[in-house]
Amino acid sequence: MTYCVGMRLDRGLVFMSDTRTNAGLDNIATARKMHTWEVPGDRVITLMTAGNLATTQSVVGILDERTKAPVDRAPSILQSPSMFQIAREVGTTLKEVIHSNDDSGAEAAAFGATMILGGQIKGSPPRLFLIYPEGNFIEASDDNPFFQIGETKYGKPILVRAYDKTASFENSIKLLLVSFDSTIKSNLSVGLPIDYVTYTADTLRFGVQGRILDSDPYYQEVSNGWSEALKSAFAQLPDFTFPE
Amino acid sequence: MTYCVGMRLDRGLVFMSDTRTNAGLDNIATARKMHTWEVPGDRVITLMTAGNLATTQSVVGILDERTKAPVDRAPSILQSPSMFQIAREVGTTLKEVIHSNDDSGAEAAAFGATMILGGQIKGSPPRLFLIYPEGNFIEASDDNPFFQIGETKYGKPILVRAYDKTASFENSIKLLLVSFDSTIKSNLSVGLPIDYVTYTADTLRFGVQGRILDSDPYYQEVSNGWSEALKSAFAQLPDFTFPE
Repeated sequence: MTYCVGMRLDRGLVFMSDTRTNAGLDNIATARKMHTWEVPGDRVITLMTAGNLATTQSVVGILDERTKAPVDRAPSILQSPSMFQIAREVGTTLKEVIHSNDDSGAEAAAFGATMILGGQIKGSPPRLFLIYPEGNFIEASDDNPFFQIGETKYGKPILVRAYDKTASFENSIKLLLVSFDSTIKSNLSVGLPIDYVTYTADTLRFGVQGRILDSDPYYQEVSNGWSEALKSAFAQLPDFTFPE
Repeated sequence: MTYCVGMRLDRGLVFMSDTRTNAGLDNIATARKMHTWEVPGDRVITLMTAGNLATTQSVVGILDERTKAPVDRAPSILQSPSMFQIAREVGTTLKEVIHSNDDSGAEAAAFGATMILGGQIKGSPPRLFLIYPEGNFIEASDDNPFFQIGETKYGKPILVRAYDKTASFENSIKLLLVSFDSTIKSNLSVGLPIDYVTYTADTLRFGVQGRILDSDPYYQEVSNGWSEALKSAFAQLPDFTFPE
């Protein structure tokens, strides 16, 4: 499994992903699930992936190769005129990779993957998409300002309640860390280190990219502090009394 | 889907279940998922069910009929000498019902169900079991003091962090309501009213049995208050600062 969140804010975009991959409980490894492309002053693109690692690496490889082989650059995500078109291209590539594996006779579902794509191209606003294994996609909106992929349930309640589109990046990363911590505490298939990247709208350059390790003192503080904060929040609620 | 939690406390047992059942989004109804049997001074038994409603009602029907037809009372859960034996009987009945539906040719999984069984029989301590569709079961322990069935993920983080085995029933019901509220807010297939029952160890009589409706002012207070409490808990956490 995996846990990734892409979030739209008034000030831009923020992305966070874990790095644990597993093929069974006895076969875990660390793999980067966040991929970024940047042409300063022209475009920034972030892609996060959840699902079959062979599928997602193949998709990223195809997208990357296209950006690297100048002779065959026509479908390159570094040349597409819009994020919408990039989403379509990623979706098509994803669908093709999944189908090419289907031939092996194994179940299609086993090769599935879901992706979050976000970024900005000069002349258009920042955009954020959720791309399905079928190759189609939906876009974030004010009503639906963030996307989660992978093991989404444990970390959703806090996002739903504390998301604030006017928040700073610092605050949003704090929120995401709380959501990741709840997930990591409940599901072995999601684990540190955690990657993040911020993007301020209209700068056409990535903001801060970082990796949070197990040993990170701030992460420890959030993880331990959140248990205490939850308990005191819970204590604040009025007590239940039995009827009569 | 469904959401039920059975919890072991120092002072006894507490059970809570939602009542929404659905066969697709356009076919929802209310059904009781909590079933209780009581022989004052001798035994109390609570059974909560998640999964295929035909299966679970059939299991409860079989168990109930056995308690009602005096001529064939040998396997009755009202006569079993121990909770362990009742768990075995419920498990066997569940497995049989699932198997009898298998013959229809549909997928076995579609008829599956999971159950939480708890109670006390005179002379033994209170016990709590989680029963699988395969008919086998596990028992709650100090390390694993509560069981969830149905849509368990959204409501788990708060249980993990705020469970306290020394808590009062009032406090435990408050905790369960927060967990249920997080689940109800995130998943349409879990809904009010909510049933609960408490049992104080060694009384061999149920404590309070109640149903919490949509309009319940305390539920509203917890639901709204928890959003605020979470936000203020979140604000208490130290702020993230970018490295450098």
